[in-house]
Amino acid sequence: MIPATLSRSLVEICGRDGVILDEDRLLVYESDALTAYRHRPGAVVLPRSTAQVRGAVAAIAAHGLPIVPRGAGTGLSGGAVALGGAIVIGTARMNRILEIDAANRRAVLQPGVINAELSGAARRHGLYYAPDPSSQTTCTIGGNVAENSGGPHCLKYGVTSRYVTGLTVVLADGSVVKLGGQGRDAPGVDLVGLFVGSEGCFGIATEIEVGLLPIPEGVRTLLGIFDRIEDAGRAVSDIVSAGLLPAAMEIIDGPTIRAVEDSVFAAGYPTDAEAALVIEFDGVEAGLDRDAGRARRFCERAGAREVRSARDEDERLALWKGRKKAFGAMGRIAPDLLVQDATVPRTCLPSILKGISEIGKRYDLVVANVFHAGDGNLHPNILFDRRDEDELARVERASREIMHLCVDSGGTITGEHGVGLDKKHHMALIYGRAELDAMWGVRRVFDPKGTMNPGKVLPEDTPAAPAPP
Amino acid sequence: MIPATLSRSLVEICGRDGVILDEDRLLVYESDALTAYRHRPGAVVLPRSTAQVRGAVAAIAAHGLPIVPRGAGTGLSGGAVALGGAIVIGTARMNRILEIDAANRRAVLQPGVINAELSGAARRHGLYYAPDPSSQTTCTIGGNVAENSGGPHCLKYGVTSRYVTGLTVVLADGSVVKLGGQGRDAPGVDLVGLFVGSEGCFGIATEIEVGLLPIPEGVRTLLGIFDRIEDAGRAVSDIVSAGLLPAAMEIIDGPTIRAVEDSVFAAGYPTDAEAALVIEFDGVEAGLDRDAGRARRFCERAGAREVRSARDEDERLALWKGRKKAFGAMGRIAPDLLVQDATVPRTCLPSILKGISEIGKRYDLVVANVFHAGDGNLHPNILFDRRDEDELARVERASREIMHLCVDSGGTITGEHGVGLDKKHHMALIYGRAELDAMWGVRRVFDPKGTMNPGKVLPEDTPAAPAPP
Repeated sequence: MIPATLSRSLVEICGRDGVILDEDRLLVYESDALTAYRHRPGAVVLPRSTAQVRGAVAAIAAHGLPIVPRGAGTGLSGGAVALGGAIVIGTARMNRILEIDAANRRAVLQPGVINAELSGAARRHGLYYAPDPSSQTTCTIGGNVAENSGGPHCLKYGVTSRYVTGLTVVLADGSVVKLGGQGRDAPGVDLVGLFVGSEGCFGIATEIEVGLLPIPEGVRTLLGIFDRIEDAGRAVSDIVSAGLLPAAMEIIDGPTIRAVEDSVFAAGYPTDAEAALVIEFDGVEAGLDRDAGRARRFCERAGAREVRSARDEDERLALWKGRKKAFGAMGRIAPDLLVQDATVPRTCLPSILKGISEIGKRYDLVVANVFHAGDGNLHPNILFDRRDEDELARVERASREIMHLCVDSGGTITGEHGVGLDKKHHMALIYGRAELDAMWGVRRVFDPKGTMNPGKVLPEDTPAAPAPP
Repeated sequence: MIPATLSRSLVEICGRDGVILDEDRLLVYESDALTAYRHRPGAVVLPRSTAQVRGAVAAIAAHGLPIVPRGAGTGLSGGAVALGGAIVIGTARMNRILEIDAANRRAVLQPGVINAELSGAARRHGLYYAPDPSSQTTCTIGGNVAENSGGPHCLKYGVTSRYVTGLTVVLADGSVVKLGGQGRDAPGVDLVGLFVGSEGCFGIATEIEVGLLPIPEGVRTLLGIFDRIEDAGRAVSDIVSAGLLPAAMEIIDGPTIRAVEDSVFAAGYPTDAEAALVIEFDGVEAGLDRDAGRARRFCERAGAREVRSARDEDERLALWKGRKKAFGAMGRIAPDLLVQDATVPRTCLPSILKGISEIGKRYDLVVANVFHAGDGNLHPNILFDRRDEDELARVERASREIMHLCVDSGGTITGEHGVGLDKKHHMALIYGRAELDAMWGVRRVFDPKGTMNPGKVLPEDTPAAPAPP
């Protein structure tokens, strides 16, 4: 429970319906989409404006309590989990699009706007917002900014940081800063770039300006079906080497295909296949058929059993369905899921996929892969049952081995899900003391007292870490 | 002069030919390409390796002396000028391309590699390096990283920060950090993004990893000739509104056209025109003719007198010639040049161009415009003679008015040339105290003693500025 004086202040600032103190209702905010970490917050505050966020943060800061910013809670690294009874500031009610400036291709929005809704609103101007996390019908732009989110089409279009051009941010002490804006590259120290991907540790964005793109004139979508996952990996590699620039290239492996086909989301993928490769091209209509034709031939040469093409938008959505519903479908196989998020040099994909499969076999675990093949961002999903203690122990060992395998191949520990709580202790795998010191130094500039999403991202067991309060 | 013990150490570290102490030879390093600021350095050091940079920085730090990193000295904001007898560390001899990893489309290089040479070396792999500052045959990648440089084709391809994926950096105390690398988005605090554009104030990059792109299959280049610059601005605006995505859109105004045509670089532009608009499309061959045709019609509808098309690479280079040689040609009109670098929302271009022209007339000054029209990045060049004191005073007043005009329209004080020395005192036009405080805070993390390129970028008259030494 938080102090009564504080809860009164918060109710005064955000209204009675803007403060959650009831234990049962707090339960909803116990974890993010990575259910491995569960901690109940001391309270949840749901402000409606920058002024309310500022007021709430200042009131909480006056009590010296920690704050956790939270969007839709779809994160996969435990970043929005409230450690030590921290108070969650949720952006659910800050969901207005404040401006769409079509002529300058920019929009200004509150952080609680859902990713897909922004593209929906921009559509009548012929524009859209490019980064498309798989959770885009649920996740918020504020959360995307915090995690620097990617998505299938980021292969061609880049991740969130490429699109954020301005921010209004409430810092840990309740002060408000305005970073960038008006679509411009801001001179001086790049505080906008620094904030994007800061995982809630630098403050709370209360207004976000993003760049929009013209909706591509045409799109071509292919689905290659393979008997061996290495062949799908080779097709990806050949397509890239040939200088083709698909908008997306996603691989769904055999176990994932079977999970999807067994579910209500059945997408018509052959269940005896070991990989499906979704390839999409978009852009000016004129060149698309030729590009798609070339990609088809690369698939066939790599050994594809079959290559399907979407003839219209319905067929396109059908080809994508297996990919989009993959995570949901895995719930059918096992109650728990551990999703890794390592990025490896594209050329290492075939050997790493083989290595992951061997690790799975060695620990007698089901590992299902569904991932952004074009940019080497793997998502091996280990399926298990947390109630089986022996299995849980094997999962943890296998997961660590998979991460080491990726790092040893020149990869990194997270491609797009963020470090959060889940990868914090693996930061030392890729950074030395000097780099972690610099990161702590920069973080302290924004949050000198360490009350903004504490316990996340940076390991405390480095000399530069702040002393525990 | 620097202390004799220090010059002995530097010679020991970098060799006799790697240290310049001679006053006459130091003269060369007195300014960058913006000749308004001239300060002779205490010494110039030319290391060959990360180890030599580290040694030199540590030796200089032991004497508490300030350091100024320098690439080719083509900067336009006074960023590489050595204030207070600072020691310049030049990267001229660190000019090796260390690796081109074609399969993963990345290269690793020393900072002194010339921008155009990287694309030259990547060509045999069918790849190139996208950011193309106008000085690209001279400027270095290290300088591009420091300034987060743009160029004509950054309209479509983005600026330097989009391409830098890893850095080895020597910090102010001589320690070495490795940021990012292997083409991946680095987890945690985005130190790579922070370093790019830090204008030499955060340390010296000694190895740089960048992403490369496949050379576009085809290119179409148009040159629209206009009797009124507003019409050229309207064509730009219409092309963007129609959803076309040119690789570059550059405007060269009447005074600039006449300067070029009077020079040895004569490009065949009509000297009675008031604007030339270079438009380039690149990408998959198939769609290019249609896009170029549409852009041609937008030019004609906006009132172009004539639209030329390049039929081959020679003709393409000829159309570009007037743009590429514009700065050089201006030397013919007047001995001194003050180039502004404001960015404005694209939709404000016509009114701002009119305003700049009026300011020029009011102060009786020649203002020549040559600029990246597609992204609203203006380069008004005020031509003058520094020996005429009255004129110099008018130049300074006009320059300030132009900048205010741009900022008042929602623009910013620098689009790509950096803040350096030249724009430092204008930072308060666009930032409040909290933002400047945060920038100082971040800068101090990298350079706690304030010895790395001091006196640049951030104004000292803010409460967060460090006390003078």
